Amino acid sequence: MSYNTFGRVFRFTTWGESHGPAIGAVVDGCPPGLALSETEVQPFLDKRRPGQSRFTTQRQEPDQVRILSGVFDGKTTGTPISLMIENVDQRSKDYSEVANAYRPGHADYAYDAKYGFRDYRGGGRSSARETASRVAAGAVARLVIPEVRIRAWVEQIGHSPILYSRFDETEIDNNAFFSPDATAATEWERLVDAARKDGSSLGAVVVCEAYGVPAGWGAPLYAKLDSELAAAMMSINAVKGVEIGDGFAAALATGEGNADPMRPGEDGPEFLANHAGGIAGGISTGQPVRVRVAFKPTSSILTPVETIGRDGEATEIRTKGRHDPCVGIRGVPVVEAMMALVLADQKLLHRAQIG
Amino acid sequence: MSYNTFGRVFRFTTWGESHGPAIGAVVDGCPPGLALSETEVQPFLDKRRPGQSRFTTQRQEPDQVRILSGVFDGKTTGTPISLMIENVDQRSKDYSEVANAYRPGHADYAYDAKYGFRDYRGGGRSSARETASRVAAGAVARLVIPEVRIRAWVEQIGHSPILYSRFDETEIDNNAFFSPDATAATEWERLVDAARKDGSSLGAVVVCEAYGVPAGWGAPLYAKLDSELAAAMMSINAVKGVEIGDGFAAALATGEGNADPMRPGEDGPEFLANHAGGIAGGISTGQPVRVRVAFKPTSSILTPVETIGRDGEATEIRTKGRHDPCVGIRGVPVVEAMMALVLADQKLLHRAQIG
Amino acid sequence: MSYNTFGRVFRFTTWGESHGPAIGAVVDGCPPGLALSETEVQPFLDKRRPGQSRFTTQRQEPDQVRILSGVFDGKTTGTPISLMIENVDQRSKDYSEVANAYRPGHADYAYDAKYGFRDYRGGGRSSARETASRVAAGAVARLVIPEVRIRAWVEQIGHSPILYSRFDETEIDNNAFFSPDATAATEWERLVDAARKDGSSLGAVVVCEAYGVPAGWGAPLYAKLDSELAAAMMSINAVKGVEIGDGFAAALATGEGNADPMRPGEDGPEFLANHAGGIAGGISTGQPVRVRVAFKPTSSILTPVETIGRDGEATEIRTKGRHDPCVGIRGVPVVEAMMALVLADQKLLHRAQIG
Amino acid sequence: MSYNTFGRVFRFTTWGESHGPAIGAVVDGCPPGLALSETEVQPFLDKRRPGQSRFTTQRQEPDQVRILSGVFDGKTTGTPISLMIENVDQRSKDYSEVANAYRPGHADYAYDAKYGFRDYRGGGRSSARETASRVAAGAVARLVIPEVRIRAWVEQIGHSPILYSRFDETEIDNNAFFSPDATAATEWERLVDAARKDGSSLGAVVVCEAYGVPAGWGAPLYAKLDSELAAAMMSINAVKGVEIGDGFAAALATGEGNADPMRPGEDGPEFLANHAGGIAGGISTGQPVRVRVAFKPTSSILTPVETIGRDGEATEIRTKGRHDPCVGIRGVPVVEAMMALVLADQKLLHRAQIG
Repeated sequence: MSYNTFGRVFRFTTWGESHGPAIGAVVDGCPPGLALSETEVQPFLDKRRPGQSRFTTQRQEPDQVRILSGVFDGKTTGTPISLMIENVDQRSKDYSEVANAYRPGHADYAYDAKYGFRDYRGGGRSSARETASRVAAGAVARLVIPEVRIRAWVEQIGHSPILYSRFDETEIDNNAFFSPDATAATEWERLVDAARKDGSSLGAVVVCEAYGVPAGWGAPLYAKLDSELAAAMMSINAVKGVEIGDGFAAALATGEGNADPMRPGEDGPEFLANHAGGIAGGISTGQPVRVRVAFKPTSSILTPVETIGRDGEATEIRTKGRHDPCVGIRGVPVVEAMMALVLADQKLLHRAQIG
Repeated sequence: MSYNTFGRVFRFTTWGESHGPAIGAVVDGCPPGLALSETEVQPFLDKRRPGQSRFTTQRQEPDQVRILSGVFDGKTTGTPISLMIENVDQRSKDYSEVANAYRPGHADYAYDAKYGFRDYRGGGRSSARETASRVAAGAVARLVIPEVRIRAWVEQIGHSPILYSRFDETEIDNNAFFSPDATAATEWERLVDAARKDGSSLGAVVVCEAYGVPAGWGAPLYAKLDSELAAAMMSINAVKGVEIGDGFAAALATGEGNADPMRPGEDGPEFLANHAGGIAGGISTGQPVRVRVAFKPTSSILTPVETIGRDGEATEIRTKGRHDPCVGIRGVPVVEAMMALVLADQKLLHRAQIG
Repeated sequence: MSYNTFGRVFRFTTWGESHGPAIGAVVDGCPPGLALSETEVQPFLDKRRPGQSRFTTQRQEPDQVRILSGVFDGKTTGTPISLMIENVDQRSKDYSEVANAYRPGHADYAYDAKYGFRDYRGGGRSSARETASRVAAGAVARLVIPEVRIRAWVEQIGHSPILYSRFDETEIDNNAFFSPDATAATEWERLVDAARKDGSSLGAVVVCEAYGVPAGWGAPLYAKLDSELAAAMMSINAVKGVEIGDGFAAALATGEGNADPMRPGEDGPEFLANHAGGIAGGISTGQPVRVRVAFKPTSSILTPVETIGRDGEATEIRTKGRHDPCVGIRGVPVVEAMMALVLADQKLLHRAQIG
Repeated sequence: MSYNTFGRVFRFTTWGESHGPAIGAVVDGCPPGLALSETEVQPFLDKRRPGQSRFTTQRQEPDQVRILSGVFDGKTTGTPISLMIENVDQRSKDYSEVANAYRPGHADYAYDAKYGFRDYRGGGRSSARETASRVAAGAVARLVIPEVRIRAWVEQIGHSPILYSRFDETEIDNNAFFSPDATAATEWERLVDAARKDGSSLGAVVVCEAYGVPAGWGAPLYAKLDSELAAAMMSINAVKGVEIGDGFAAALATGEGNADPMRPGEDGPEFLANHAGGIAGGISTGQPVRVRVAFKPTSSILTPVETIGRDGEATEIRTKGRHDPCVGIRGVPVVEAMMALVLADQKLLHRAQIG
């Protein structure tokens, strides 16, 4: 099946292909009365927009969003919000190679196996271009959770991590890599430039934290906050791993080392650690909600790779054309958007049951 | 909200608390005509059953399942299948300590913050006891996907991993740890014994593979096979991380190193690697589907931990009573069950759209 | 598919067959802190219980409900509430006739056509016995909407209607027919007795009103309050028609005649009529919500009817055994339950979006 | 909540307001490989289009649909299909009266009560204009069920019914009223003309039949075919009643009179009657599926009606401007679309469980 809706009461549905006339999202279940215009959405799209530095794909998309419904007199009405972004730079090119052979690591073969054929232009529906729709929907979600501040950054590109001793949140928007560590950003320039020149690609790790989530959000057992976050993040193109709090490091810990002791605080309990990433039993604890996401290197590389054609015959393919040498970088605003979308949904779910 | 249903067309709903009279699951959407009796379900429950070795909780539960509906003349009828397991060994004890103070790392505080109060007996709804219902439902799911073989094992306990050079699948059921490496099992005996004696606990990593999944299962974009698996695994108690294929290691790779080249094979393409874990673009590729799951050490430890009471005052708590020194061990049949449940659902979803 | 869950945030799932060991419902999404025990549920089951007068089926079922989860210290915990009712009087009999031939008007043929076979004992899953589970779930739903009072009655049996000039709500529980008109009840005794003796059956119309529903409940456009009520009522066995407000009579009216003029009232607007049945644009208006439901006569009759066997050959069938001569009578508590279940869900949905 | 998605595996989501820039639908879950272009959709929109005769609203909308996604090389790809229709004739006018006072019978008051304010221009989201989106989605649904032929007609306007003795299906598209009875159509001209001139409005009854639905579609118990149809029809603007088969007339029948005897036929059973409307136990029987739908007269009338203003003060309102004197007429293609959408969904649901 195709299933292009996410969320339970705050829901969004995305549509559109990389090289179709437009892409978009319909946001449903949004509370009424929130101030919304293109102005609230555009900045987030601008953060994700391609072609802004030499470290991302050179496709030039203005990514101008239009709101087609659900807003009246500058406010959400409680009815569906239709967001549309026109595709502008669908470069006219010869797709015969991609049409006839499967790029390993891409969805080409899997889509053909499932659907019998595919829109091969620029990856069609499986293109990371779809994430623009998520970012637009996420901007609406943020309006629902004004008490929450969300911040993501790149923690690592390839084998090169940031140092948390150099962490400076204000730095994140000062470089092309969403790096909170200016020194790492300089190193990444070199790394990503090299990869770009070689027609290679690099993986990355993105961390996202949400501050101000009150204790009590989460819908046990099968819409737990961490379970919803895992689904949300793993649905992003190129993501292969998700951790909440300490994640895999927790498997190495003992119960003593992994404890998050509590003390009476000013405003609810004060926690002495946050190994849990702000979630216990699938419910937020009031601590920062922390998720860590692994992006693989894109499979679009210049080195020829052994593959098969649609005819089943052996062949080789190299991916020419525009692509992100490190797709994790532009993943940052997408991860933030998914965090916002999950939290908005969980806030409304909580309100439904608890009032 | 409470949300206790998982799946889209093959769905199950679980109910029950650790110390209530019973727990259970209702499986809905199961195809008709499948041979089903308690005999098909019980062996999986037996694998998960507590009290079978000194390395798991000493609670003695026979975990005898009863099928109350949905089966006639030994076959599923296509109507809901109600599975019930009585709770037998709800040890009569004094719960006042747990009732009045929050065990750090447990769901105690979060449940109180959400619901205003909680069933504190044995963890109530947030107890790992609920996973017995999943295992029962998973046994039904397996009937839906006879073409698939599922196998999980413990890969690591604390800092002690298996060696894949010693991997022997037949070994998995020969030890108390679901270890495919007999040598590691011996080492883990020592480790877990020590933890148990110290009243400490250990984390673990579980790996699960599904063989025989045909190419084409998966429901892009928001019910991708990997996204559903991530949600399913992260919904298990104590799980903090999920990886598909290479997971976080993929973030360290280059596009060349991460490629899964294809060659013409006997029966569809032959893949030269499986970094992707059998999923591309959210759709199965025909390779083994591989997921890796991190379990934290349980927070039930004898060492006193700083905490607060329901009254907000500072106190300390140590968790006496029965518990699993390494909850990841008994996670193995649960991870397998969730794999089966996701795959059964995806198979039926695929059939809905593609026929 | 089988789809045995109803509701969006306040949801219930039913399971069980007429002659299985038990039937039941799992209620999920219920707010915490509501006083609940078997005592709150049993009276509603008692109203629906078979065998209470000669005008309903003679099957003797105590219909004692057990609550297996979701309640602690006499209050709902916010976790799933499992309700179970054991089947006691599954009369041991020879089902070969029903097994081998299709009773026209029953679900026999359709179930076989869909599932390939069926549990033919007492109608299996398609038996009206399932409605006991709805009534139990409905009792929980009522706790969620204490501001609402729900009242249903039989308006007509066969060609014999009540007179609204004789309407006396207190009369409804004074007779075996849920008739608000004592004179009609006397006439119905005669009618139903005659049908019972002849092995015939009668249709009926049930009206249900909900008082105290505030303006604003309803989820346009595809979970409108009236749309949800229509689905809920039409899902009851033997129901063939649903009207909101004036229903089909509205098709005969002019815009002037169908208007519900408003005037300023003490507490919001005062309406001068209620042709709309308390719902406009799918949203409650604050007036009584009114639904009218048509029950067909059951197809279980003694007169032989032409039919075919499982083998496709021509045959005849007469339905012996116990049955309701007028199934609409016992429909009254079921219609009330479905009204409560829809309203509880809509209240929580409203709260989710609006706060 | 707002809930603008319908369907379970074949789903559509609509968006848009009467006087916004556009309206549209996203169809998700459609099988791949179906031939689809605007050409397949436009004829159905043309049937529903306003301004085609003096008997419907004079708003001039070309209702040209654009397909923005989900189609490649003229075929559905299995990904979401975005359908957009621009609003052209949003007449610039003074809405202050409607903005400040509630039109009785319209959704004005209910929307304000729910959301706090509303887009009052032309009814905003509650306008029947939204049904164009359903008709577009319905055109896609028809591709999924080529074995089914759907046909609806107006059976009655006000007190004036067609005579089935004069029923001629070919006549339906020959008059402005979708009347299968040419004589009735002539009478309706007179009736509707009179209503239009008086600024009054008329109710209507629409009948819809689907031929070729095989036995076995339907998802008991809470997505029964009849239950889904009831929800679908009741969600249409101005609908107040839904009947399956004999509907309310069945309440007057006896079991003998209501039986649908079966005989062996060429191709499955031959039924001697169809009181059930082609559905038993929520599952199709192979007979024509028959639904009857009551439309109220629109509340937009020239006669002043007592009402209140947003300020709560007493006032009067008359609805000037363009409107349908009998909204049931244009309901015909909408009822057909909803029938197609329900059947497409049920076909895929059936396929999911049964294969």
